[in-house]
Amino acid sequence: MQRNDMVLGIDIGATETAFGFVDGHGKILTTAVMPTMADRPAEDFLPRLKIQIDALGKPLPEGFQLRGIGLGAPNAHPRRGTIENPVNLKWGAVVHLKSLLQAYYNLPIALTNDASTAAIGEKMFGSARSMKDFMVVTLGTGLGCGLVLIDRLHYGVSGFAGELGHPTVDPEGRQCHCGKRGCLEAYVSASGLIRTALEMLALRNDPSRLRALKIVEITAKRIFELASKGDAIALSAFDQTARILGMKLADAVAHISPEAIFLTGGLASAGDLLIDPTARYLDEFLFSVYRGTVKIAPSGLPAGTGAVLGASALIWNELKS
Amino acid sequence: MQRNDMVLGIDIGATETAFGFVDGHGKILTTAVMPTMADRPAEDFLPRLKIQIDALGKPLPEGFQLRGIGLGAPNAHPRRGTIENPVNLKWGAVVHLKSLLQAYYNLPIALTNDASTAAIGEKMFGSARSMKDFMVVTLGTGLGCGLVLIDRLHYGVSGFAGELGHPTVDPEGRQCHCGKRGCLEAYVSASGLIRTALEMLALRNDPSRLRALKIVEITAKRIFELASKGDAIALSAFDQTARILGMKLADAVAHISPEAIFLTGGLASAGDLLIDPTARYLDEFLFSVYRGTVKIAPSGLPAGTGAVLGASALIWNELKS
Repeated sequence: MQRNDMVLGIDIGATETAFGFVDGHGKILTTAVMPTMADRPAEDFLPRLKIQIDALGKPLPEGFQLRGIGLGAPNAHPRRGTIENPVNLKWGAVVHLKSLLQAYYNLPIALTNDASTAAIGEKMFGSARSMKDFMVVTLGTGLGCGLVLIDRLHYGVSGFAGELGHPTVDPEGRQCHCGKRGCLEAYVSASGLIRTALEMLALRNDPSRLRALKIVEITAKRIFELASKGDAIALSAFDQTARILGMKLADAVAHISPEAIFLTGGLASAGDLLIDPTARYLDEFLFSVYRGTVKIAPSGLPAGTGAVLGASALIWNELKS
Repeated sequence: MQRNDMVLGIDIGATETAFGFVDGHGKILTTAVMPTMADRPAEDFLPRLKIQIDALGKPLPEGFQLRGIGLGAPNAHPRRGTIENPVNLKWGAVVHLKSLLQAYYNLPIALTNDASTAAIGEKMFGSARSMKDFMVVTLGTGLGCGLVLIDRLHYGVSGFAGELGHPTVDPEGRQCHCGKRGCLEAYVSASGLIRTALEMLALRNDPSRLRALKIVEITAKRIFELASKGDAIALSAFDQTARILGMKLADAVAHISPEAIFLTGGLASAGDLLIDPTARYLDEFLFSVYRGTVKIAPSGLPAGTGAVLGASALIWNELKS
């Protein structure tokens, strides 16, 4: 590793694509964001991205050397270098993103799903630097998970291990957008929190400032604000979310027995309203042999730039090992 | 590996302890069983075992060489070489079985829990010889699981990864002997099947030959026999058991994404009544990206001797790698 080595980290989201040049210490030298324009084809996306990257690279110091490109994207298949059936990108069934990008850059390129970049970012630059077995759970619009087992990202035979949004909480429960019923993501996610609040408004008679809102106005942020002010329904919605998350993380511990579970993403920023009760419920649901062997903590990566850091970490992990 | 190399495999159960000399091809040369006498201390168990082993080793061919001893036992901790808080052995909180046995044999000794020996046995001598990621689920009085990930037994930070008897099926559900409620083992196991049959007898009005039995006479075997003859309640009890197992194995696939899940133990011998419907329900509960990536199959090890083979495989796996 040279002093001026850089890696380009790219995080492709449904709305925005963030990218930046990252050094070997996890310092972001420069970063930018462009609209993904998810309804246009991938062949349109890449030339736009290339122009933006070139512009971003211009002010970098003399002699800097780009060593590789790491990408995080929804539904990315790490071994095939593809993005497959993304729900929120109108890119078609299978896009060979790695080879498309390779046409512009003759460099090592790696891609994986955004939860796995969060995990490898945590390992390289965050709170999991000394850990061999841990999980990162991303709590945003949906619920994702990146797994590091025996010091490596674990993908399993399918290449998709860690899709923890879709284990079953209740086989007769809520409809999930995946076509099944009662998936974890339908309970523990920004939209799951909203559904839980609605269910409680129906079940209970407590006064709540949520009752004054149009249903479409109820957001996770609104529920968080009201919970912070002591609204009983909003508080219960968080508590119920934490209980279900704790229960399913206890299942995860039985499978993996990780040293730590890091929570990140929009919903995780609710902090004490979510992380502390999740840890408490996890302990309650854990089989005795696992008690005291696993900790729950917020991600050690900075909130705004974690995705770009994580994407770059895919390459840094290879360069450093 | 010499032609006459042997490994001693020992499987300690609550009632019986089976042991035998196994060659590198998984052939059992000679095997025997002695009562465990679980209510007497471990210090009494080992001298008895030693005498039996010596007697068993006598008729072996000239020049055979014992290369190590593999043990399977409930609540075994593979790294510490201990048996910790076994429910069915009155051996106290922590027994250092490995070092106690080492006093008799100056040989490599390895121990692990009985589900993990089943998994390593499947890898060395059974149907998982070419697999790197798979699970073996043991369905007997309880439910256990051995995990092979990236070609090695996976124990996690606690040393106990794979205790799949205690993930939660229903947080308000059946009491489990572990102190929690609604654990998988309380539904999917010999005793779980009996409880399911009882629940159905209470819920439904169908005639069933189970109604003529004393409740203490209802066994998993009895339910199996009646189901084989078309008894509606008995059939439904198996179907419900398979559904819950399929649902929770779908969770396991989301965590691990194995190539195969092997079922073994008394309940798995119900064959078509359990394995086929479990595979069907698993498919139903799987998140789409995993469909078609995992198969369910009965263990490839012989029913009677799998435990001894598996215990020996702990050492054979080390000798051969």
